[in-house]
Amino acid sequence: MPRIQPRTLKGFRDFPPAMMIPREWIIDTARRVYRSYGFSPIDTPALEHLDILTGKGSEETDKQMYRFEDPGGRMVGMRFDLTIPLARFVAQHIQALGTPFKRYQIATVWRGENPQAGRYREFMQCDFDTIGTTSTTSDIETVLIISDLLQALDFERFTIRVNNRLVLSGLLQKLGLDQHSGAVLRALDKLGKIGPEAVREELVTMASASPEQAESVLQLAALTGTNAEILQQLQPLLAGSEMGEQGLAQLAELREALAAAGVPDERLQLDVSIARGLDYYTGMVVETFLDDLPEIGSICSGGRYDNLAELYTNQHLPGVGASLGLDRLLAAMEKLGQITAVQTPAQVLIPFFAAEHRNDYLRLAGQLRAAGIGVEFYPEPKKLGKQLQYANKKGFRIALIIGGDEFATGQCQVKDLASGNSETVPLSRDAGGVIGKIESLLEKVRH
Amino acid sequence: MPRIQPRTLKGFRDFPPAMMIPREWIIDTARRVYRSYGFSPIDTPALEHLDILTGKGSEETDKQMYRFEDPGGRMVGMRFDLTIPLARFVAQHIQALGTPFKRYQIATVWRGENPQAGRYREFMQCDFDTIGTTSTTSDIETVLIISDLLQALDFERFTIRVNNRLVLSGLLQKLGLDQHSGAVLRALDKLGKIGPEAVREELVTMASASPEQAESVLQLAALTGTNAEILQQLQPLLAGSEMGEQGLAQLAELREALAAAGVPDERLQLDVSIARGLDYYTGMVVETFLDDLPEIGSICSGGRYDNLAELYTNQHLPGVGASLGLDRLLAAMEKLGQITAVQTPAQVLIPFFAAEHRNDYLRLAGQLRAAGIGVEFYPEPKKLGKQLQYANKKGFRIALIIGGDEFATGQCQVKDLASGNSETVPLSRDAGGVIGKIESLLEKVRH
Repeated sequence: MPRIQPRTLKGFRDFPPAMMIPREWIIDTARRVYRSYGFSPIDTPALEHLDILTGKGSEETDKQMYRFEDPGGRMVGMRFDLTIPLARFVAQHIQALGTPFKRYQIATVWRGENPQAGRYREFMQCDFDTIGTTSTTSDIETVLIISDLLQALDFERFTIRVNNRLVLSGLLQKLGLDQHSGAVLRALDKLGKIGPEAVREELVTMASASPEQAESVLQLAALTGTNAEILQQLQPLLAGSEMGEQGLAQLAELREALAAAGVPDERLQLDVSIARGLDYYTGMVVETFLDDLPEIGSICSGGRYDNLAELYTNQHLPGVGASLGLDRLLAAMEKLGQITAVQTPAQVLIPFFAAEHRNDYLRLAGQLRAAGIGVEFYPEPKKLGKQLQYANKKGFRIALIIGGDEFATGQCQVKDLASGNSETVPLSRDAGGVIGKIESLLEKVRH
Repeated sequence: MPRIQPRTLKGFRDFPPAMMIPREWIIDTARRVYRSYGFSPIDTPALEHLDILTGKGSEETDKQMYRFEDPGGRMVGMRFDLTIPLARFVAQHIQALGTPFKRYQIATVWRGENPQAGRYREFMQCDFDTIGTTSTTSDIETVLIISDLLQALDFERFTIRVNNRLVLSGLLQKLGLDQHSGAVLRALDKLGKIGPEAVREELVTMASASPEQAESVLQLAALTGTNAEILQQLQPLLAGSEMGEQGLAQLAELREALAAAGVPDERLQLDVSIARGLDYYTGMVVETFLDDLPEIGSICSGGRYDNLAELYTNQHLPGVGASLGLDRLLAAMEKLGQITAVQTPAQVLIPFFAAEHRNDYLRLAGQLRAAGIGVEFYPEPKKLGKQLQYANKKGFRIALIIGGDEFATGQCQVKDLASGNSETVPLSRDAGGVIGKIESLLEKVRH
């Protein structure tokens, strides 16, 4: 029989256990943190009517969308993000669900982009959003969740950069440049690349700014210092613009509330140069960088928007939310050595070498599982050496060595696979001694 | 602006929180049980090269597959099960992973079938398999996992029906009918519908059986009684057929091992009429029925197969596994009243009505979360009555009522939303009293 070459599509990948175990840990952690703030899970279909998806993201996402005619002759598309499905979902269900509506969705999305290093055509998004309220409290909570989440993922050194779109909008309004905010943002986005002089020129030529107006914009974007200093410097620049002052007040309020909630001030960085896209966000915007790996970019980003679902409903639905970049985070954790490569979620292996005692092994394994200990029982009676090799390769912590003699005398060798040390423990009817020994060994490795 | 009608595709559905919360609970429980036996997670792409998928399932799955040309001009298909992706995955990676390889995969699959009651075009499968061993120990473990899983899902009344394909194959071999086993199975499959006389006729006409051969086959399929009785009745029927005796021995071994591992014998039912498809399974086969809802069919099924990945590799890979029918199970739990409809994963709501104390509320919420309690803080200061309505609608258990006076005197009302009772608790700096009170209330509702 001619065989088919087993292979995955370009830009797609398999997740073997060593990759999937940390991935599941991150997802579990995100869910736990989102849930602890009262966010509820939802899910939506991978496929949507094409008219739900097209023209909603950018030109780029339109081009990258997987689309086809389904067997029923409908034009359909595979979701390329979770925001548009959320908007469609909310338009359909918000009447029944009520507001505020706090949801998370952790799901796969597809984009047929040209795969580059670290970019895939299939990836997972982990979004959380609060819909139906304009309260700054939800902005604050969004930043608190990012802080809790990163800590729960064992990061200590990270910076949450926050801006408020009203700050720049207020300044532009005050300067009479609000008709050209798009051109101003495009110019400012290049600041890091082309430097202030070239930006100044672009502001004048492309955004119709006078030299004085360009100077004011550059002054705003160049602000540095502590959060307190930045807030102080912003005051005179925005004085007289209601919008700008509102943005400034929200930033100050955010900073104060985070401090009260125990987030260290140095973890937060007010940064008026953050824009995050031109049209979508209207208030607070947030990005998160790892201090030891800033070059990989923001690993958790989001912001406040005015009207989520206007394409599908006339109900006005403001909201705020953010998204954890799972694949980027996983890559960072690998680079930083924060991932221990194991291929098993169980910590204990019971080698099988006294063939006539299979049912005794099974009973013991069941007792350990009932005590909450993950146990693999090797399925075939084989030489102990082979089975210990298997245990080491897979990353088990402990092997329980029990042969015919041990069963006869009621004893069990508990072997710590990291140190190689063994200890003989009595094998009682309820396996109490073995369970206690395993628990104390596992306790030790949990730093 | 003309609005787009928000809607999902026929056969697809949204999962709002009240559906998604129990769904996540089932998935978590399955993962926990699979992991406790040492099964590791893997994932594979939703899209595969079309030649990987076509002609591998049945004619039906071929017809139902979503397939299209991707932007790069490749013919691709959306996976319609997790078995074929597993076969492809294993052919590609087993050299690096080694055997035995124990994996679970919980993922979405798509079939463009005509949606009927309870059938969807997008659904989730929860599979676990042990690859690379022919050991009966893995068969036994498969059944143990099903038993553990159903118990972990709070089912007490269920029956695991087990057969071994070698039993019927052995009989057919003994009768000289093994060339017609397909026709025999097709006829036997109709036993419940058309009755023994019609099956007898079909065996004679379609499977070339003599009246005596047909009688022997019907005798086997009609066996009833306790497990011990069935094993006893099978013995003379299979005597002399090596294959049949091997199947019988495996069934006896399975029964004995499950008893030793503490599974009550009445939970297991040997049933020689179970076939589960014609070609794929070669040894043990298993189905699981809820005693209070047998009509919904098997909620967890599987079996042993000889060669998983022969289409993609010349490595011989036997295995055994099963799959939990998530949607069917969820429907059953709803029918049996085993699902409490809540719309929030958090149990405590903190209403927000003393506007000037927002940071105090945030601090308290953070303290509760640090103690492992899920807390939603209402985002806007509103009338308490409105917020308690919201709490009841969403299904919170407890509301913490703290106004300006309570903050001033250091007190907090802990309101049990089920009973309506309130108790005043001191609001200390570390919130210790409040945490203790909440824990004791939540303990009470956990039956």
